Amino acid sequence: MAAAPTAKFEEAWLVIQDELSALFAGQGMPKEAVEWYTKNLDYNVPGGKLNRGLAVVDSVQILKGAELTDDEYRKAAVLGWCVELAYFLVADDMMDGSITRRSQPCWYRLPAVGNIAINDACMLHSAVYRLLKVYFKHEPYYIDVVELFLDTTYQTESGQLLDLITAPEGHVDLSKFSLRRHQLIVTYKTAYYSFYLPVALAMRMSSVPENAPSQKIGPYKAALSILLPLGEYFQVQDDFLDFAGMPEQLGKIGTDIIVNKCSWCINTALAVASDAQRKILDENYGRKGAEEERRVKAVFEAIGLRERYAEYEREVYEKLSGMIEAIPEGKPGEIGGLRREVFTVFLDKIYRRTK
Amino acid sequence: MAAAPTAKFEEAWLVIQDELSALFAGQGMPKEAVEWYTKNLDYNVPGGKLNRGLAVVDSVQILKGAELTDDEYRKAAVLGWCVELAYFLVADDMMDGSITRRSQPCWYRLPAVGNIAINDACMLHSAVYRLLKVYFKHEPYYIDVVELFLDTTYQTESGQLLDLITAPEGHVDLSKFSLRRHQLIVTYKTAYYSFYLPVALAMRMSSVPENAPSQKIGPYKAALSILLPLGEYFQVQDDFLDFAGMPEQLGKIGTDIIVNKCSWCINTALAVASDAQRKILDENYGRKGAEEERRVKAVFEAIGLRERYAEYEREVYEKLSGMIEAIPEGKPGEIGGLRREVFTVFLDKIYRRTK
Repeated sequence: MAAAPTAKFEEAWLVIQDELSALFAGQGMPKEAVEWYTKNLDYNVPGGKLNRGLAVVDSVQILKGAELTDDEYRKAAVLGWCVELAYFLVADDMMDGSITRRSQPCWYRLPAVGNIAINDACMLHSAVYRLLKVYFKHEPYYIDVVELFLDTTYQTESGQLLDLITAPEGHVDLSKFSLRRHQLIVTYKTAYYSFYLPVALAMRMSSVPENAPSQKIGPYKAALSILLPLGEYFQVQDDFLDFAGMPEQLGKIGTDIIVNKCSWCINTALAVASDAQRKILDENYGRKGAEEERRVKAVFEAIGLRERYAEYEREVYEKLSGMIEAIPEGKPGEIGGLRREVFTVFLDKIYRRTK
Repeated sequence: MAAAPTAKFEEAWLVIQDELSALFAGQGMPKEAVEWYTKNLDYNVPGGKLNRGLAVVDSVQILKGAELTDDEYRKAAVLGWCVELAYFLVADDMMDGSITRRSQPCWYRLPAVGNIAINDACMLHSAVYRLLKVYFKHEPYYIDVVELFLDTTYQTESGQLLDLITAPEGHVDLSKFSLRRHQLIVTYKTAYYSFYLPVALAMRMSSVPENAPSQKIGPYKAALSILLPLGEYFQVQDDFLDFAGMPEQLGKIGTDIIVNKCSWCINTALAVASDAQRKILDENYGRKGAEEERRVKAVFEAIGLRERYAEYEREVYEKLSGMIEAIPEGKPGEIGGLRREVFTVFLDKIYRRTK
């Protein structure tokens, strides 16, 4: 089945944004406040890669196994845009001191905005529940999708806290790092929200039940057991490409070494480094200079990071393929049945990507 | 009926805090992250005046008309502490550049914390929904209390945005001020969360139905119609006491004039000021100097602010008393019936307060 066209999904946003602004104005808010809120939405929500939002629409389509009605498409797109209303991008930029996002200055860096961005980020989060109330209040799965957003928000914040206290910029302490810590950070910070949430939302909307009789684990637990390691794999790739990818392909130059990121690369190196290599890493990781970065990269090469990555990718692809194969499928067109294709499209998009 | 003792309510927090920390640790979080989260809860949640939290417990008690069972008390206390888990106190301190709260440095001002406070504030908000899930997941009113928190959070953020763009510190523009704007700010920023939310939660827990047959407006709308103006009255008082209260009684010295607050006092003055008085206000309001503050206060006295306040208080008290009288009461002990006492205890606590 063809992926949902991006243009149609982007058009849906224009309607949603107008609805959110109208709801806000409907509280009696004055014009300047409505304009502020609208600009907050417009500046911070569209314009990303839309992978997460489109994943909801794609998954709903796969689970139905047939063209969506207009109403079904609209509902799937609203859920998709709720995932794209990711308030923590705005908040994380402030905490990380980021300069730009999506080739424009970060919201908090606009002179008129500054710290008001904290409240604006919270308003993006609240917008999710406004939309759910408007579109899903009378659906039997309303409380389930509300809980999915509340739960994954909490998980993402847990991951962000763990990341912030493990790898604060400018305070390098590699003794806090480990592959286990890395896994915990990326699972909580990324995998729940960017991988499990879109699929679980699509499953709820498609009436996939909490428990399927005759199956050992329920469909949501089965989905989680695949999508968390899949999200971890995606993030490991991201970390590896930051080191080894082509800037021309990636559209950016890697900075993980300089900003003291708790990345898969440094954790893999730490796990196998000799005493001399460890000393180099301790003295040069997370420092601002190009020479320091070069020394860290030399250790990465020396421990064979490229080969280790290739091996990791081979293994994880095999493991995930096997797990997907083991999922009990519904019959095509059966309401509430699960489809392996939901997971294989994810895996195929990611496997051996170079950007 | 006697108010719930503060000490019992405070004891309930210790259990709740332990449960939240245990839930967080149960995700596999390492010790240092659990300690951080626990300190976030401990530093930012208890230690306030607890008016909002106790109002939930008091209201549940009044609505029952008899002593609460242990289980009822525990549930009421959890809802009360969910209201006290007011994440925007932490966030507002950052946006306002506040120095202290409850006689200790604001959380974000602790050197180890800084901007991590943004994520910590979000985690306080998420803690509300953790607790609701643990304690209320199987209650018929679960979705109603979840929605109450989501809705009032959005309303509070709307009010905070309006306040921030109406009265930014250091950018005085009194043409944006008006009594209407003041009413809008305090209704959204304070009245929904601090007055409507505690009572509506207690009503939900006490099985007060959405619609009462034979009554023109439902009980929640009736409660809202009283509690929003009651909250506004409370805030008008707060503003007036900032100007006219005794620092020894208040435990603080007023700063509204200096920080450019969109307060009831300045808006009342603007509404009746002569051209000459207006000029003084334009040139001196929101400035840092003591002489500027003195000049503004002189205009407040000249327009008779004290008498205007006394008149306002007399009128609002009469109006609210009349509205409370008009509420149809359930019989004492009747499940799901409303009691006027829920509102009169609020009004009596506030009327003519001097601190």
